Amino acid sequence: MRARDIMTKEVTSVRADLSVELAIALMLEKRISGLPVLDPDCAVVGIVSEGDLLARPELGTARPKPGWVQYLISPGRLAEAYARERGRRVGDVMTREVVTASPETPLDEIVDLMTRRRIKRVPIVEGGRLVGLVTRADLLRSLRRALQEAREAPPRDDAAIRTDVETAFVDAGVIPLELIEISVVDGEVGLRGSLTDERQRAAIRAAAESVSGVRAVHDRLTWVDPMSGLVLLSTQEADPRGGTRAV
Amino acid sequence: MRARDIMTKEVTSVRADLSVELAIALMLEKRISGLPVLDPDCAVVGIVSEGDLLARPELGTARPKPGWVQYLISPGRLAEAYARERGRRVGDVMTREVVTASPETPLDEIVDLMTRRRIKRVPIVEGGRLVGLVTRADLLRSLRRALQEAREAPPRDDAAIRTDVETAFVDAGVIPLELIEISVVDGEVGLRGSLTDERQRAAIRAAAESVSGVRAVHDRLTWVDPMSGLVLLSTQEADPRGGTRAV
Repeated sequence: MRARDIMTKEVTSVRADLSVELAIALMLEKRISGLPVLDPDCAVVGIVSEGDLLARPELGTARPKPGWVQYLISPGRLAEAYARERGRRVGDVMTREVVTASPETPLDEIVDLMTRRRIKRVPIVEGGRLVGLVTRADLLRSLRRALQEAREAPPRDDAAIRTDVETAFVDAGVIPLELIEISVVDGEVGLRGSLTDERQRAAIRAAAESVSGVRAVHDRLTWVDPMSGLVLLSTQEADPRGGTRAV
Repeated sequence: MRARDIMTKEVTSVRADLSVELAIALMLEKRISGLPVLDPDCAVVGIVSEGDLLARPELGTARPKPGWVQYLISPGRLAEAYARERGRRVGDVMTREVVTASPETPLDEIVDLMTRRRIKRVPIVEGGRLVGLVTRADLLRSLRRALQEAREAPPRDDAAIRTDVETAFVDAGVIPLELIEISVVDGEVGLRGSLTDERQRAAIRAAAESVSGVRAVHDRLTWVDPMSGLVLLSTQEADPRGGTRAV
């Protein structure tokens, strides 16, 4: 998938000369955490977000004044920092370096940008103009649809499911396949055997649950702590439902 | 102000065994970007947020599989990472290291935590139980109120405003006071004179606008570029309103 497939097209944006007070009102009312800042040609000149408004004298959260050494280094940059922290116009407080993408950018590149730059939204630009916005919530919507579709998949043959679960375990690469016995009845996967590390349990369940047609996973795997000799069963054994359902 | 004064008390939280699909539905419906994860005693055991759900095979955004060297290093941790990226339960994908604060934590410490750890919300814990949540939006609400109150302050004597503007310029420490002429008529501040750096303009406006009783700032300051000899006036000189209003 690409940015085009999941981006929001109706983007709430502001101009640099809007007051900070009105920009905040807009963010709170629409329950969004940031706004692209556009010039009259709809080019993105900045982004103003919650993060730009946390350190403020009005909240008693402004940073301590810099020492005299820093004044010698760059009075111009200090003037800028002062305006950023106290400004009443969007243009004074916004972040000017904006990471943008095109409608054709693949989702994995968008996620990579968000993760590395720790940003919440990527403006989508075409021909120098803002055409959309991909937010983390847009990605969640997409993931929710995929999980829903997987859950609503039609029933499958138990033998085919069993083969796929085995393949998923092999693909995961972190599951001791030779120690695990897999059974499938009416789309419900039963697992017996032992683990070499208690942390494998969640990986095994995740791998089994990701197979199409699986309706529940019954984990009866045990792990023997090599230090204490303590035997650990799945906590869900105590669950009267007898398994983790696929929802 | 302290966490207690601005925290949200009605916190939407989830249990670790809830499905990822339902947690996403909750986040999208309530338009929130993260949920504290509680155990049956209401202790915070994790947080699940948008950031925990960006890298997923369902979206085609999962990270590439690690090489064989990493398997030798720690198979247990790799199993954990696998479950984190594919898990269908909140407990598998949530972030376990949660930064919390107490109701008495001052706001500047909360902001410092948010900024340094790059987090969006701080669960407020008292006696081991969750009692509230401070989000960035809670801080915005507080800032909005402060800006509103400042704007609605009653009119003040022009001479008193002039003195306060001068003090604000001195306090800012980045404004060449000796080059600037300040006049105040009916709460509107007029500024003439020259800048030593164009970046001082925003700082000067921010300092003047932060003075109680100021209704508008008319910036007629000039800056002569030492390299080109170019004279820069404020862009608002072209504005028919003739000034930056205090809203």
